[in-house]
Amino acid sequence: MPLPEGLLAAALAGERRAVARLITLLENAPSGLAGAEEQPSAAATAAEIMAAIYPHTGQAQVVGMTGPPGGGKSTLVARLAAEYRRRGLMVGIVAVDPSSPFSGGAILGDRIRMGALSGDSGVFIRSMANRGELGGLARSTAGVVAVLDACGFRRILVETVGTGQAEVEIARTAHATVVVQVPEMGDEIQTMKAGILEIADVLVVNKADHAGAARTVAALGAMLDLRRSVAAEAWRPPIVQTVATRGEGCAELVDALDRHAAYLGTSGRRAAQDEARARSTLRGVLHEALEEWLLTLLGRAAFEEAVRQVAQRQDDPYGMATALLRRALQEAGGKRPQRGEDTA
Amino acid sequence: MPLPEGLLAAALAGERRAVARLITLLENAPSGLAGAEEQPSAAATAAEIMAAIYPHTGQAQVVGMTGPPGGGKSTLVARLAAEYRRRGLMVGIVAVDPSSPFSGGAILGDRIRMGALSGDSGVFIRSMANRGELGGLARSTAGVVAVLDACGFRRILVETVGTGQAEVEIARTAHATVVVQVPEMGDEIQTMKAGILEIADVLVVNKADHAGAARTVAALGAMLDLRRSVAAEAWRPPIVQTVATRGEGCAELVDALDRHAAYLGTSGRRAAQDEARARSTLRGVLHEALEEWLLTLLGRAAFEEAVRQVAQRQDDPYGMATALLRRALQEAGGKRPQRGEDTA
Repeated sequence: MPLPEGLLAAALAGERRAVARLITLLENAPSGLAGAEEQPSAAATAAEIMAAIYPHTGQAQVVGMTGPPGGGKSTLVARLAAEYRRRGLMVGIVAVDPSSPFSGGAILGDRIRMGALSGDSGVFIRSMANRGELGGLARSTAGVVAVLDACGFRRILVETVGTGQAEVEIARTAHATVVVQVPEMGDEIQTMKAGILEIADVLVVNKADHAGAARTVAALGAMLDLRRSVAAEAWRPPIVQTVATRGEGCAELVDALDRHAAYLGTSGRRAAQDEARARSTLRGVLHEALEEWLLTLLGRAAFEEAVRQVAQRQDDPYGMATALLRRALQEAGGKRPQRGEDTA
Repeated sequence: MPLPEGLLAAALAGERRAVARLITLLENAPSGLAGAEEQPSAAATAAEIMAAIYPHTGQAQVVGMTGPPGGGKSTLVARLAAEYRRRGLMVGIVAVDPSSPFSGGAILGDRIRMGALSGDSGVFIRSMANRGELGGLARSTAGVVAVLDACGFRRILVETVGTGQAEVEIARTAHATVVVQVPEMGDEIQTMKAGILEIADVLVVNKADHAGAARTVAALGAMLDLRRSVAAEAWRPPIVQTVATRGEGCAELVDALDRHAAYLGTSGRRAAQDEARARSTLRGVLHEALEEWLLTLLGRAAFEEAVRQVAQRQDDPYGMATALLRRALQEAGGKRPQRGEDTA
């Protein structure tokens, strides 16, 4: 079934309620991929929704915001959104918490944001909990970002907690990654910096009115210099000092992000980013499509039996995967028309 | 080509050099899955290696060790390994750092460990850097764990940095997850606890000689009580206090892990874990097999052209995935024998 009449138009026009409904539809939609055969569905499929919105995407600047917890990220995101609003841009906020896959609880900071931004129809906020599947969070986040992009939100802030692999994956879906640090508090911050410095397009030292801010800025600058002496890069991540609770430094942060967006365009890196993102998304959807095709042919019971055999070490995962693929191809071969009819 | 003669036997006998060679072979091996057709290969394929070792796996107790950086995890892992050695068990250590995907640098703490454990042929240490692909790190970690399991290492300690999604995924490949905390240092630790408490089978408060240790133990206990009042669980994660630098508490930690292993067995949860792990591994390998099958049929150039079209928004990922699958099935249909020959 296609999208409900009027919903797509209302969402594309930026009506918040329609946008929320479209996101919910997408999150709960059957993929529409099964067996690559048409199958009737009571609800619009993810494939149908994506086909409808995809041509309208590609106009948003997506900014990933990451860094260790306790750094004031949520407040900074809210202030950054307010600064974009002052500049007349519609802003989407996607708050992702991969570290609480089992709790599904509310994201810290949502209440703060809602206080400042609620009632503004130019701001859309969505919290994402992890549904427990590897890759699932990155994919559903990408879906929400695509909807917001299509619906006219020209800046999309994707906030993640922590600095693990999921954050890095999500950062890759963004055009720019902001890493938020706070004035040094000991060894642990030092340890984190090493890894996340490499994904930062803009560095923020928040709580810049605290002791040690100047020292942290200097230390980050030295690490950037060290890196640049190893790998010559055209873009040196600027270090912006903010006091998010008072909104200080947010205009400078927006300016830094604008300069970065301009750099991406002129250097051709934006095109490379788009291609990497398309590759990753296409592979993810392709895996889903291929798995559904195989399960449709063999049946879920056969797959569960295969799982049981691997769990009991009657076969290894590689041998079993090869066997399942062979059986699926035999099934498909038996059901398919012959070459002559096929290519007519 | 099968495994080099003698290598498998030497590795299965626990010879460290052979184990290291086998792991390297596995990490660099072609999958052996392409198109589900036999294809000659100069090196042993991952499929061949896994088929050879898989029947020997399933005897190790795999313990995931996680927690925020700066908590003394590496030292604790080394001391825990030493305690297992005292009890006559061979120990594998796999150190995973998902937060430095681009650096590939050495893992902190390896030097500490090597000092204490080097020269002991009953200990095998492997550092894993992230190779950049979603799911790749969890899969290659699982491969190393399988090799160590097959080669007689009866305890395998998988250490991860941070508390993000990757850590949670890796924790799922372990039979028990130890979450290492330190005496409270402020809000940020509080924030982290909420999520990782739920993956902990055993909680450790390391640096228990520092101020605030008793308060942290009490706070963790209260949080556990709160959780148990919501969801009645048979296993209450014990809280073990350690001073890793002096090896204090490591015997208690081993005892707690032994009790947990016994609980897994008697409660039937170990079987459920094995099945969940088998499902996840099988799906990962299946996705790989299906993708290789499709790429073999259509050619990499066609796939790259599809990526380009998605990047330029000429088609959406769902539409393109469906189209690629259709084309692959047409190709396969054309090449396949007819039903009669097929099932003869």
